[in-house]
Amino acid sequence: MQQFVSDYMEGAAPEILDALTRTNMEKTAGYGRDPYCESARERIRRACNAPEAEVHFLVGGTQTNETVISSLLQPWQGVLAAESGHVAVHEAGAIEHGGHKVLTVPGVDGKLSGDAVRSFVNVFYADANWEHEVAPGAVYVSQPTEYGTLYTLAELEDIRRACDDANLKLYIDGARLGYALAAAGNDVSLPDLARLADVFYIGGTKVGCLFGEAVVFPKSGLIPHFYTITKIHGGMLAKGRLLGIQFDTLFTDNLYERLGAHGDTCADRIRAALAERGYELFKPSTTNQVMVSVTPEQAAELAKRVEFGFMEALPNGREVIRFCTSWATRKEDVDELISLL
Amino acid sequence: MQQFVSDYMEGAAPEILDALTRTNMEKTAGYGRDPYCESARERIRRACNAPEAEVHFLVGGTQTNETVISSLLQPWQGVLAAESGHVAVHEAGAIEHGGHKVLTVPGVDGKLSGDAVRSFVNVFYADANWEHEVAPGAVYVSQPTEYGTLYTLAELEDIRRACDDANLKLYIDGARLGYALAAAGNDVSLPDLARLADVFYIGGTKVGCLFGEAVVFPKSGLIPHFYTITKIHGGMLAKGRLLGIQFDTLFTDNLYERLGAHGDTCADRIRAALAERGYELFKPSTTNQVMVSVTPEQAAELAKRVEFGFMEALPNGREVIRFCTSWATRKEDVDELISLL
Amino acid sequence: MQQFVSDYMEGAAPEILDALTRTNMEKTAGYGRDPYCESARERIRRACNAPEAEVHFLVGGTQTNETVISSLLQPWQGVLAAESGHVAVHEAGAIEHGGHKVLTVPGVDGKLSGDAVRSFVNVFYADANWEHEVAPGAVYVSQPTEYGTLYTLAELEDIRRACDDANLKLYIDGARLGYALAAAGNDVSLPDLARLADVFYIGGTKVGCLFGEAVVFPKSGLIPHFYTITKIHGGMLAKGRLLGIQFDTLFTDNLYERLGAHGDTCADRIRAALAERGYELFKPSTTNQVMVSVTPEQAAELAKRVEFGFMEALPNGREVIRFCTSWATRKEDVDELISLL
Amino acid sequence: MQQFVSDYMEGAAPEILDALTRTNMEKTAGYGRDPYCESARERIRRACNAPEAEVHFLVGGTQTNETVISSLLQPWQGVLAAESGHVAVHEAGAIEHGGHKVLTVPGVDGKLSGDAVRSFVNVFYADANWEHEVAPGAVYVSQPTEYGTLYTLAELEDIRRACDDANLKLYIDGARLGYALAAAGNDVSLPDLARLADVFYIGGTKVGCLFGEAVVFPKSGLIPHFYTITKIHGGMLAKGRLLGIQFDTLFTDNLYERLGAHGDTCADRIRAALAERGYELFKPSTTNQVMVSVTPEQAAELAKRVEFGFMEALPNGREVIRFCTSWATRKEDVDELISLL
Repeated sequence: MQQFVSDYMEGAAPEILDALTRTNMEKTAGYGRDPYCESARERIRRACNAPEAEVHFLVGGTQTNETVISSLLQPWQGVLAAESGHVAVHEAGAIEHGGHKVLTVPGVDGKLSGDAVRSFVNVFYADANWEHEVAPGAVYVSQPTEYGTLYTLAELEDIRRACDDANLKLYIDGARLGYALAAAGNDVSLPDLARLADVFYIGGTKVGCLFGEAVVFPKSGLIPHFYTITKIHGGMLAKGRLLGIQFDTLFTDNLYERLGAHGDTCADRIRAALAERGYELFKPSTTNQVMVSVTPEQAAELAKRVEFGFMEALPNGREVIRFCTSWATRKEDVDELISLL
Repeated sequence: MQQFVSDYMEGAAPEILDALTRTNMEKTAGYGRDPYCESARERIRRACNAPEAEVHFLVGGTQTNETVISSLLQPWQGVLAAESGHVAVHEAGAIEHGGHKVLTVPGVDGKLSGDAVRSFVNVFYADANWEHEVAPGAVYVSQPTEYGTLYTLAELEDIRRACDDANLKLYIDGARLGYALAAAGNDVSLPDLARLADVFYIGGTKVGCLFGEAVVFPKSGLIPHFYTITKIHGGMLAKGRLLGIQFDTLFTDNLYERLGAHGDTCADRIRAALAERGYELFKPSTTNQVMVSVTPEQAAELAKRVEFGFMEALPNGREVIRFCTSWATRKEDVDELISLL
Repeated sequence: MQQFVSDYMEGAAPEILDALTRTNMEKTAGYGRDPYCESARERIRRACNAPEAEVHFLVGGTQTNETVISSLLQPWQGVLAAESGHVAVHEAGAIEHGGHKVLTVPGVDGKLSGDAVRSFVNVFYADANWEHEVAPGAVYVSQPTEYGTLYTLAELEDIRRACDDANLKLYIDGARLGYALAAAGNDVSLPDLARLADVFYIGGTKVGCLFGEAVVFPKSGLIPHFYTITKIHGGMLAKGRLLGIQFDTLFTDNLYERLGAHGDTCADRIRAALAERGYELFKPSTTNQVMVSVTPEQAAELAKRVEFGFMEALPNGREVIRFCTSWATRKEDVDELISLL
Repeated sequence: MQQFVSDYMEGAAPEILDALTRTNMEKTAGYGRDPYCESARERIRRACNAPEAEVHFLVGGTQTNETVISSLLQPWQGVLAAESGHVAVHEAGAIEHGGHKVLTVPGVDGKLSGDAVRSFVNVFYADANWEHEVAPGAVYVSQPTEYGTLYTLAELEDIRRACDDANLKLYIDGARLGYALAAAGNDVSLPDLARLADVFYIGGTKVGCLFGEAVVFPKSGLIPHFYTITKIHGGMLAKGRLLGIQFDTLFTDNLYERLGAHGDTCADRIRAALAERGYELFKPSTTNQVMVSVTPEQAAELAKRVEFGFMEALPNGREVIRFCTSWATRKEDVDELISLL
């Protein structure tokens, strides 16, 4: 049975596993105070063209989102997100557990827009009683989105302007960032993210690492004592060098984008095959998530031969399913999937 | 300038102020361990036909909602509410500060329905990944609602059944309960609430008290140590007898419903006058909140002569404004308002 | 049976009750946006010689301490307090519920000292692993202390210096402040507190009000949006003017200190009688709390004739009991207590 | 320079790294729903002689302690711990961030006793005002303790009895449990822990794993939905099988105890050499932590040749330093350390 359920089904890219093996018996200081973490931070700063950036390594995505968002917000603030945003739906209430409301607005293809931010802010402050409501304090976007779609540079720049006008922080969730950077038509680079975001993270878990997310504050010092904060929120790894080694490898010889490109290419082939066979692609994804709208009967039929993800039931009775590729997807598995479609 | 902005603009009903004055120099134990609180609890139990009920007195509404909801929910749960529910909109994120998400569904006239609860639950558990989302743990309804509308007994009974089927607690916010009990066409009594809700509160602040809300757990012991919990959440009053004295008076000689009836009658007169003059009433309220849909020009014109509340802007360009009466509204002020319309 | 259990057994000072009665049917805006609150704020600013001070009214002490402390601290910080500090012992964990550790040091007569603060800070930062521990972020002192003792001006000034040196905020809990201001030998005035503290509160509940605490930030803007924060923490009163009216009265014609002086005078008489009869006074209180060390037999004997508070069991087998006077204590009750001793 | 700073300086035991490498490109479900986790759970159940046990895998120690403790406690409760307990000192306030107070009592050699628990409980409930304080809800002990000392079976059984008498949960932190199980004189087995604790964890991070802690609830269902709770608290790993593979290996062929025994043996040799040379051992540790009391001059001298941990300054001017061995310590490094002493 073929499996295209998610992009975290395998372990790590061989280069990363090799590095972990090679360094296994070295002794280093704990908690991210080791040379590998320092080297990885420096490589990330260079890749982001952000020599002053502050870089922290956390273990997983929900943990990272919760830690960053609760740090960005003041106690009376919430975070603005698209209704389909990961923090709004799939994090078991971690953001609220941290004390903050997720303020949702409908997205278009999973994306917020500068105007959606402006509109929310305008309506909010037009209410004479806004001091009795949750004020927006930050904007959460994901690149790529939960639908696999991408923000263009112009779109992100407009969101940045909207944030500046309303004194909002901008946080970009890059759980699958590698697949965005390598995608056809993408025009948003790491230096762009570093220029536009107050904080963003470079996802390792879904792009070649065993685990790990690199949180980048382009301007150092935005959140004092973020180091201790990660510990309080359960995100500090004792053997922190494991994160350093992985990201150091990921940012050597352009591995991160190469891994992303592989996943995208596999997805592109699946999308082409689907289109050819008359399937209805759902949302204009160019990254490693392939969304298709099918009838329940089609879904049931496909499910006999391949494992995939179920996304949502549409009002018209159809269902959105997802085939997810990754850095680890094998060509022959894509071939077989295509033959099964 | 006439003022119909809210139902908490005056102090307390004369009977209550008299009782506070009469007892002022008595010495009693603090923190609700005094004979007045005990008497008030007993009167409330009788009024609710719930001899085993556990009754706690808190100071204000947001505090009460946050304390009760965070006590009812398990850490992985959220509370289901109508989109217009007070806890979803007007409590500055207090529920989320307490660690829980407010799960909203569109209401009809501000009301949830048993079917809306069932539908939410069914969609939720149909998702294979529901353990990564916020499970519904309780249902929040307000009687009357934020629009002044009322649940019928049949509607509340159906919500209760939906809660039973899905193992949800039912919490009824009675911030303005007096105006519901006394309203034309109301068929839900205090004993009904005690029979149907896991916990509800009888609002004092908006119905004749200086402040105070009586939280009723019809079945004692639902939340162990709720007494200490109220302290942790900032809801315990040192001179607790002030709450006891007020509620003891409120539940003597039917004062609570009499105060409610006065507010409703004033509102009925305003509604009749509005209808007569061709104003478009918004939402079928029969309680002390009068909602009217007007043009911005009408609103501006009225605002020169009377203070009222602004509720929301409608998609059609009209605005919803609110005239709010109370136990304290004077007949001559209603007369003058009517003459101004 | 005489009752000297606590200083919150009666209602309000007659002047305050009169003011509440006189204004009862006036209509004002809610949530502290009324003229009485504004007037009270201005009177407090004048009494504190702090024309720029920001003043907020909350309902009770635990609520105030939790709201202020969680606002003063950053997420990685705790509050330093004497082991006997109210926040360390008698608030049911409200500070921890708000997310912060109370860092305790032994006090002398219930008091911290500048040197105790310095010593804590020095030991803390001498630990190479301090980023894995809770950093001190603020200092909590109470004036008078939980033992009824007083800080001298020189002592508070030294604590202030220690705070400045270590970048700590200084918060002074004035739950019983009126009894300090009026006490024999006190040399700390309201302007001194406003000069030395980052924030302090003037307690109303225990000094003549039905309830209410006035939080004073001598420098406006220290905690942005503290108004909304009080709502989130359950400390905002809908009919906020009740707090304004009470504090406006309290700061008219020096009522606050007159009420305090009355309580102190009553306590002084009890202390003199106790000393005369050979009782062992515990801690050098000059305020309204009279602490006596007695044998268990003495305590049992006294308990037959008067209600008092039990404070602690001493290692030597004796017990500390407390007679508490207040603004409301009657001369004849003191006489009778003295005759019973 | 020799390094005996901590027991998390290297990567993973070779057997574990091999298993991770061997399985690297397999596809499994995420979040702990894979066959390796299931196998590891089953092996742990067998090792604990607890066929009904519920086993969860988390990433790190602080995260585990915070998640378990906040789940065990009711909102009005705190956790009882020795003053030297890890949760009381070295977790940056994570427990308080989770809303709960750590109630400390002085320990003896880092250990609580049944009588210390009883005494705390008795004093607590003897206070008439205990409902205004933090009630003990659980007891935290670590095996081995932060000083490397061990509870005997009789001691743990007495603590269990004290917990039963006071309705307290018992939680045992086994961050270094492998070093306890293998230690000279230890008489507490995994089945003992499963019989005595309500929940305990088997530490992987410090005993051979890259990371990971196995939380064992001997009686399944104690904390409903603990799975989702771990996600909310940031402790759920996307590629959960990494934890399963590690613990599956650890509990194959007795690897866990063999790794522990190696660390203990190395420590025993160091202790013997220290004793021989007249050093003053501090606390009777028989596990992998070697505590020595030295003069500041001795510490400075040693620090030129070996890295070690600084534990605490003693009142007598001496300092406690720690040499920490582990599963990874090499014989030749111990030899060299001994030659340096």
